[in-house]
Amino acid sequence: MSATVSAYLWDYRGRVIVDCALYREGSRIEGHGDPGELRKRATEEGDFVWVGMHEPSEDEIADVARTFDLHPLAVEDAVTAHQRPKLERYGHTLFLVLKTLWYVDEQDAVETGEIALFIGHDFVVSVRHGLGNELHSARTDLEAGHQALTHGPGGVVYAVMDRVVDEYVAVVEELIIDVDEIETSVFSDQRTNDSARIYVLKREIAEVRRAVLPLRDPLNRFVAGSVDGVREEAAPFFRDVADHLARVAETVDSLDALLSTAFDAHLAQISVQQNDDMRKISAGAALIVVPTLIAGIYGMNFEHMPELGWTYGYPFAILLMASAAGGLWVLFKRSGWL
Amino acid sequence: MSATVSAYLWDYRGRVIVDCALYREGSRIEGHGDPGELRKRATEEGDFVWVGMHEPSEDEIADVARTFDLHPLAVEDAVTAHQRPKLERYGHTLFLVLKTLWYVDEQDAVETGEIALFIGHDFVVSVRHGLGNELHSARTDLEAGHQALTHGPGGVVYAVMDRVVDEYVAVVEELIIDVDEIETSVFSDQRTNDSARIYVLKREIAEVRRAVLPLRDPLNRFVAGSVDGVREEAAPFFRDVADHLARVAETVDSLDALLSTAFDAHLAQISVQQNDDMRKISAGAALIVVPTLIAGIYGMNFEHMPELGWTYGYPFAILLMASAAGGLWVLFKRSGWL
Amino acid sequence: MSATVSAYLWDYRGRVIVDCALYREGSRIEGHGDPGELRKRATEEGDFVWVGMHEPSEDEIADVARTFDLHPLAVEDAVTAHQRPKLERYGHTLFLVLKTLWYVDEQDAVETGEIALFIGHDFVVSVRHGLGNELHSARTDLEAGHQALTHGPGGVVYAVMDRVVDEYVAVVEELIIDVDEIETSVFSDQRTNDSARIYVLKREIAEVRRAVLPLRDPLNRFVAGSVDGVREEAAPFFRDVADHLARVAETVDSLDALLSTAFDAHLAQISVQQNDDMRKISAGAALIVVPTLIAGIYGMNFEHMPELGWTYGYPFAILLMASAAGGLWVLFKRSGWL
Amino acid sequence: MSATVSAYLWDYRGRVIVDCALYREGSRIEGHGDPGELRKRATEEGDFVWVGMHEPSEDEIADVARTFDLHPLAVEDAVTAHQRPKLERYGHTLFLVLKTLWYVDEQDAVETGEIALFIGHDFVVSVRHGLGNELHSARTDLEAGHQALTHGPGGVVYAVMDRVVDEYVAVVEELIIDVDEIETSVFSDQRTNDSARIYVLKREIAEVRRAVLPLRDPLNRFVAGSVDGVREEAAPFFRDVADHLARVAETVDSLDALLSTAFDAHLAQISVQQNDDMRKISAGAALIVVPTLIAGIYGMNFEHMPELGWTYGYPFAILLMASAAGGLWVLFKRSGWL
Amino acid sequence: MSATVSAYLWDYRGRVIVDCALYREGSRIEGHGDPGELRKRATEEGDFVWVGMHEPSEDEIADVARTFDLHPLAVEDAVTAHQRPKLERYGHTLFLVLKTLWYVDEQDAVETGEIALFIGHDFVVSVRHGLGNELHSARTDLEAGHQALTHGPGGVVYAVMDRVVDEYVAVVEELIIDVDEIETSVFSDQRTNDSARIYVLKREIAEVRRAVLPLRDPLNRFVAGSVDGVREEAAPFFRDVADHLARVAETVDSLDALLSTAFDAHLAQISVQQNDDMRKISAGAALIVVPTLIAGIYGMNFEHMPELGWTYGYPFAILLMASAAGGLWVLFKRSGWL
Repeated sequence: MSATVSAYLWDYRGRVIVDCALYREGSRIEGHGDPGELRKRATEEGDFVWVGMHEPSEDEIADVARTFDLHPLAVEDAVTAHQRPKLERYGHTLFLVLKTLWYVDEQDAVETGEIALFIGHDFVVSVRHGLGNELHSARTDLEAGHQALTHGPGGVVYAVMDRVVDEYVAVVEELIIDVDEIETSVFSDQRTNDSARIYVLKREIAEVRRAVLPLRDPLNRFVAGSVDGVREEAAPFFRDVADHLARVAETVDSLDALLSTAFDAHLAQISVQQNDDMRKISAGAALIVVPTLIAGIYGMNFEHMPELGWTYGYPFAILLMASAAGGLWVLFKRSGWL
Repeated sequence: MSATVSAYLWDYRGRVIVDCALYREGSRIEGHGDPGELRKRATEEGDFVWVGMHEPSEDEIADVARTFDLHPLAVEDAVTAHQRPKLERYGHTLFLVLKTLWYVDEQDAVETGEIALFIGHDFVVSVRHGLGNELHSARTDLEAGHQALTHGPGGVVYAVMDRVVDEYVAVVEELIIDVDEIETSVFSDQRTNDSARIYVLKREIAEVRRAVLPLRDPLNRFVAGSVDGVREEAAPFFRDVADHLARVAETVDSLDALLSTAFDAHLAQISVQQNDDMRKISAGAALIVVPTLIAGIYGMNFEHMPELGWTYGYPFAILLMASAAGGLWVLFKRSGWL
Repeated sequence: MSATVSAYLWDYRGRVIVDCALYREGSRIEGHGDPGELRKRATEEGDFVWVGMHEPSEDEIADVARTFDLHPLAVEDAVTAHQRPKLERYGHTLFLVLKTLWYVDEQDAVETGEIALFIGHDFVVSVRHGLGNELHSARTDLEAGHQALTHGPGGVVYAVMDRVVDEYVAVVEELIIDVDEIETSVFSDQRTNDSARIYVLKREIAEVRRAVLPLRDPLNRFVAGSVDGVREEAAPFFRDVADHLARVAETVDSLDALLSTAFDAHLAQISVQQNDDMRKISAGAALIVVPTLIAGIYGMNFEHMPELGWTYGYPFAILLMASAAGGLWVLFKRSGWL
Repeated sequence: MSATVSAYLWDYRGRVIVDCALYREGSRIEGHGDPGELRKRATEEGDFVWVGMHEPSEDEIADVARTFDLHPLAVEDAVTAHQRPKLERYGHTLFLVLKTLWYVDEQDAVETGEIALFIGHDFVVSVRHGLGNELHSARTDLEAGHQALTHGPGGVVYAVMDRVVDEYVAVVEELIIDVDEIETSVFSDQRTNDSARIYVLKREIAEVRRAVLPLRDPLNRFVAGSVDGVREEAAPFFRDVADHLARVAETVDSLDALLSTAFDAHLAQISVQQNDDMRKISAGAALIVVPTLIAGIYGMNFEHMPELGWTYGYPFAILLMASAAGGLWVLFKRSGWL
Repeated sequence: MSATVSAYLWDYRGRVIVDCALYREGSRIEGHGDPGELRKRATEEGDFVWVGMHEPSEDEIADVARTFDLHPLAVEDAVTAHQRPKLERYGHTLFLVLKTLWYVDEQDAVETGEIALFIGHDFVVSVRHGLGNELHSARTDLEAGHQALTHGPGGVVYAVMDRVVDEYVAVVEELIIDVDEIETSVFSDQRTNDSARIYVLKREIAEVRRAVLPLRDPLNRFVAGSVDGVREEAAPFFRDVADHLARVAETVDSLDALLSTAFDAHLAQISVQQNDDMRKISAGAALIVVPTLIAGIYGMNFEHMPELGWTYGYPFAILLMASAAGGLWVLFKRSGWL
């Protein structure tokens, strides 16, 4: 079977097994075969098979689970998704769950997916839920010469985590922009109703936090080198990822706190604007009721009111009204009321 | 005694001992007998008796307590209920208390019950408080072939906890729907008074938290395999339950934080609406007081007011009032005041 | 000396030494003697003397302190009261301080007292501050056959703590009722100013918390069996008390959080009511200023105003005013403004 | 040199070395000499020299530093002040920094000073910053027979800490009075602007907390007996101080929380008062605009208005106005609007 | 090459390698040579080379990285900047990242930079990002006789950290001034809109906190002497820095809390001012509507109104209006309404 045809069979979206290959000393030496067959050929120290799956059903994963002797509880978790990030050991197999995040520009929303990894000494099974072909491109990058592959299955774990956390960083950068926009909006002179937007952003941040925070513990176990089956030399690489994750966590916390402060400031702005409005209204009212009083005075029926007989009494009264209104206006402006 | 009649005697609601049977190698081999008798026949390694009771009085439990040598303090706790979730050891017997939760649709309320388990190496005594026959169906499920039963009493503990935590998940899903509804209501344009509903939901969430949080410690002890009398192989199963519980706890925390934010947003909405109302009121007032001023002017008693003598003076004045009001309206709309 | 006379001498309020007796194998074998004399007769293993004092002055306690070799710093603490709950060891003597709480119905207030216990291997000295004769009734109960007394001085400690914590439970139940009342008041349609009451309740809860929280550590040391001089078998009893205390602490925390939410809801209610008032006021104003405008119009002095000459012009104008007001009213009601 | 003259030389304010003496078995046996000379005579086990300094410059302390071989970094800290409370070991010398607090009645303000102690096995050097001669009186008290002096330098440490913490207690009692006053003011019917006062008090409390909280760790090390050079028998004394400090910390925390609640209550009061004012204003307005409407009606120019011709039409109109206003007033009162 | 010329080549801004020298026993013995050459001459125990770089590109640092065998991940971190403060070990090399802070007066803003240090047993490579030549002056100071240099590379680490933390102290002092200004502004009688300024300051404080808090852990490791390659005798010096850092952290926390309280006070002030405005407006309105009512009364058309015929009826009416207004004014003032 030519490589092209086989690539065609394996490499399109929608297939359950996205890719499957045998790696030796950091190079892909055979691909797109039957996982079980490939595993049998992984005879040398450091050889391993990497099976990549996308949203498999319980039936579709059954074969692979049998081949690599995966624990039923872990398989169930991998199939149903909606897990928390975690690292568990079932016999000789590690089970790692990661949440993936990406930012959808059109909706200003953060979407979440999930990646589950089964790691044995001679295999990696990755199960992805959600959009995109991130794992495939990760694999391509790795095959293109990344030294991580020479670290065996642990190298794959590193490469996947690195990519996932890099996406967290990208998402957080978008959130920073959103917070900046809200900030500008809150302190603008325009009447903006920012509470809904702040609320939505806080909810998204909570979602990011739920993906990020529980991952720290698994990562720290990799950093400490306390995970069997992952070589010690990989520790600095995991430390690098842990560092990025810590920065993401810190930024997310600080964005959340900033949003709370922005919300309070928003409330203060509403109050200040209400006060300004009240002053404008009262000033406007004064401009009308004072002339009304004058009109009322000249509407009195006293027999002896000299102004009433003046030839220019009427224009005089109108002028009096206008100048009273104008005088009030100047007074309001000067006194700082407006 | 035929099985049907015996089932009749044991299996209806209201009886204190709901069921009682002897299990061997994962199968029910004898049921509905006297607990003491059954225990004597539990002679092989792994045999155990499971006695299920529902809201027994102190007298009604006395026999069973004597048969299995239960500690008086634990028995008192099991009878009076209103305990915190906890795991305690009395001599060779474990005593586990769980809170059960269920959601009552009609009242949008979370109800709580309680399950107490006494676990010895050859027996389980379960005491349930509150509605439903969940334990009975749990037992039926187990008997229908669940591998957990082969883990002995520890398997029963797992099965009960699994079921209880699954109900937590169901309750939390209902709470998520409630929070979504509140969110929609808060940000709708309609005047809604959401504070009472948010308050009630926060109180329910606090109740869920009181059931969920203290259970983590007992569960972790099962996961760590540090509980005598529960086999090591059961650890992954308990880890699975612990994982669900962690997710429940996380979701509950995040719902609570979200509700607080929603409450703040609600306050902001009230302020914004008050401001909007104030502007509407002031605009409406302007539409009346300005014509009133005009009427006042033409009500003045000056001798020389040309308009008063005009044939169409009256309609002119009315028109002036109308156009003043109309002009103000347009002004308010254009300037963004309304 | 007959028992009746001796009881008379010892057993009334106001005496400093409320009671003093020698206990052997759980029974009071001699009472109302001189503490020193009694102690000398406590020759058998498990014998102990229990001296109960009420608000002694430094002089009044001096004798007892000498008899049982109590540390001056502990004696000072016991005499002055106003200590935090604590458990300290001075040589072979334990020094335990508890806060007592009770609820005064007339004032809806929580009052606090204090009990200090000196515990040696053959004696207990209890010093009580504040109202009531709780310790005496506790002693009577114990003497009436409680098995705790057979645990020696540790049993007395248990009995006293159990009683004190039971009173905490009672106080907390009263607080729950208070919070329920506040809740009802906040969400009632009536204008209630609940902030003062919420404030007072929060202050009381803080007081309860100061009594309850520091007691957890001493209790846990009893539960862990790490306190010399208290027998291991007593641990389950202390665990029972610790459990009640944990429940009190949890409830108090959750009441406090609930009150904070209730306060926020109260603020929201005030805002909503203000808004409602503003709408009512503006509607009321409209009902008056619109007829005023009409009156102003018919008060204009135009020569040609046909209505002025109508026979029924005046009633027509009044009718116009009334129907304008009525129309506005209907409009306000229909549009949801009122 | 007679004692009187020497006392003159040493014992006035402003001198850098306030006092300097040699102590043996709890008694001052020689004083006001050269620190180096005195130290040489401290030959017996338990002998020690206590040098007391007040705000020395770097030059002024240089001699003493050389005599007792004090570490330059610690000396710098002692001279510049503005340190956090801390306990550090430099070789065989302990370095302890305490914040002193006192309440200035005139300004309702808490002032802070600082005491640094160098403790060796045969000397104590105390350096004080800020007002008062507390250390001198502490020394006098000690010399007047306090058993603490027999504990050597550790006893001096205890005596100084005891006095400092006692002052904390005094300061906190003043703060409690301040909070009580604010409480009364917030809930009084008078319009009070308490926010500034609450703010200032919160700032003072934060200052107290900065002095108190970091001291707990050093104190606990003394209590645990883990500080070399301080005898074990002194532990109960330090435990006593630690207890007072814990009470101070608890009270300060609870005052802070109380002030936050008082602030919220203050905000609620402002809102309630604003609402009350709005109702008063609207009622007042109604009392004027309704008569204005009546005046407007009788100012209409209809030809046929019977009342206009009545002899008592005018008083009738005035009466109508008055009774309308009076009726409204009664209505407002009865309906609970006012 | 004369020292002057070499200084010229090395010592201007913009060069990547700002300085490079060999140190022996605390003295600079050779400078401005090739780093590799210098390192070879560092043959005696305690000799070390210090290379100072400023914002090097990946290419520019490559040579130095090769010479000192720096780990690629650390080099990448040093070049890209935007790291969190951290201390990591790569083989025999320590990698330390610090954030630098400085206050820009013109903008009232805190700017951040970064310093990365590679520390080996015979070299220090410092990489600085951001403005200023702080490290160069630090080096000059050290060379001018600071004893820290005799502690080898660890001494350089101390000197750099000391300087960085001193700048934190300076920044915090500026922030204290800002908070004081806001405080004055919030409680001034003038209408100030402080929410934007408080928001900005809170954001700056969050930035400072992100620089300061993660540094505590690395520093504590130096203090504990648990960092290989840094001599034990340096511990007191690091403890000194740690102490300053702790003070910075404490002050920053307490400024943040103070700003939150100031914000709440600001909200209260807005409410109080709104209430004051409402009272002023209502009083002003009363001064106009009451005379309007009087005018309305004398505008009534009753035939029998004696005042209308009075010679001085008109001035009487005007006087009545004026005295009504004046009386109201006095009433408002006396009753405390204004």
